[in-house]
Amino acid sequence: MRTRFQQALDELRQRLLLMGGLAEQAVDRACRAYTERDLTICHTVLEGESQINAAEREIDELAFDLLAMQQPMAVDLRFIMAVIKINSDLERVGDQAVNITERVMDMVELPAEDLPVDIPRMATAVGAMVRRSLESFIEGKAELAMAVLEMDNVVDRMRDEAFIMLVKTMNERPQATRQALDALLVTRNLERVADHATNIAEDVIFWVRGADVRHNAIPETTAPAKK
Amino acid sequence: MRTRFQQALDELRQRLLLMGGLAEQAVDRACRAYTERDLTICHTVLEGESQINAAEREIDELAFDLLAMQQPMAVDLRFIMAVIKINSDLERVGDQAVNITERVMDMVELPAEDLPVDIPRMATAVGAMVRRSLESFIEGKAELAMAVLEMDNVVDRMRDEAFIMLVKTMNERPQATRQALDALLVTRNLERVADHATNIAEDVIFWVRGADVRHNAIPETTAPAKK
Repeated sequence: MRTRFQQALDELRQRLLLMGGLAEQAVDRACRAYTERDLTICHTVLEGESQINAAEREIDELAFDLLAMQQPMAVDLRFIMAVIKINSDLERVGDQAVNITERVMDMVELPAEDLPVDIPRMATAVGAMVRRSLESFIEGKAELAMAVLEMDNVVDRMRDEAFIMLVKTMNERPQATRQALDALLVTRNLERVADHATNIAEDVIFWVRGADVRHNAIPETTAPAKK
Repeated sequence: MRTRFQQALDELRQRLLLMGGLAEQAVDRACRAYTERDLTICHTVLEGESQINAAEREIDELAFDLLAMQQPMAVDLRFIMAVIKINSDLERVGDQAVNITERVMDMVELPAEDLPVDIPRMATAVGAMVRRSLESFIEGKAELAMAVLEMDNVVDRMRDEAFIMLVKTMNERPQATRQALDALLVTRNLERVADHATNIAEDVIFWVRGADVRHNAIPETTAPAKK
């Protein structure tokens, strides 16, 4: 039989997943707004921010109540600590989506320029990192989290390539400087999303490995959900 | 008489302050490296990063042990949760210092250009935000934390001014594009440090207000140190 505490841990996990979905969707939309130069999508992202902020506060309060409720086992403590950290990373992923839309709103005021940067490709890579970091959390698998850390290098390389190409554009086509700069800042925002996914993966490793070391196995309470 | 738990809370507070000192120093040094175009200072910052990362892990472990040790009172729980969050913000302040030195290392390879941006002034404002956010934490004062939130607008304005002026430079002096871009990215890094100080201030408000609401006063354990 499941205790109330275990049910509450499940709810915490579920809410964090919903929060992850909101954050991921926001980045996805912001990048679509970039590609389609669409202000309506920008406004959807801006309006969604308060929802993400509210979700963050609710998760924090729930985590707090769980810590206060009774003395959790060490593995559950690590799980709750990981949730608190992942929660704040997801909120900041949402902030990055807002930052991207600000660049898009600047860009749509200017003439469209063909720029040597593949934002959709970078967005796909970054979105995969966020999704896999959350998967590693749900399944409690350090190996999946390790894979996210490796993907970060790929995104860093994309950012460096974009930097070189966009500086070249600024030098060769001064009339495109501002647009190139906006695109460059979008790549920086996406890189920061990747950094948050990396942080999430590290928190998962902290949770799983710490649990393994101290308990030699993950008790049912925080064990991965069966597929 | 102070319990072992209370002593451990004090130690946690002290370590977080030391961590804050390291992070602040790293940003300060990175900005000095910018002004003086000094690679030696850059390397000092890069070498200091692992120290900051180690301090973060130690604080997390101590916070974890405190949560596991016994059932803390609600106000102490909120304090420990605030420490966990502030800790991760401070580590990322250190990351920003590293990012700034990377821009400086790019810049010193290029001819020096006179740029219309006052990095030292912005660094001073940002440094004050970090310091005050930590003061608000030490003194447990929500008013001090509120003041930090207001300072964030000033830094955002500096960033926006820098953006406009540096884009102008890129258009008027194409040979200075890359240097202007490096400076622009430094202003973005400083803005992120300001964002972390803002997050810290918000965590202090969460801790103090939450404690006030639930307990109507801050018990001695986590009360501000006497000046």
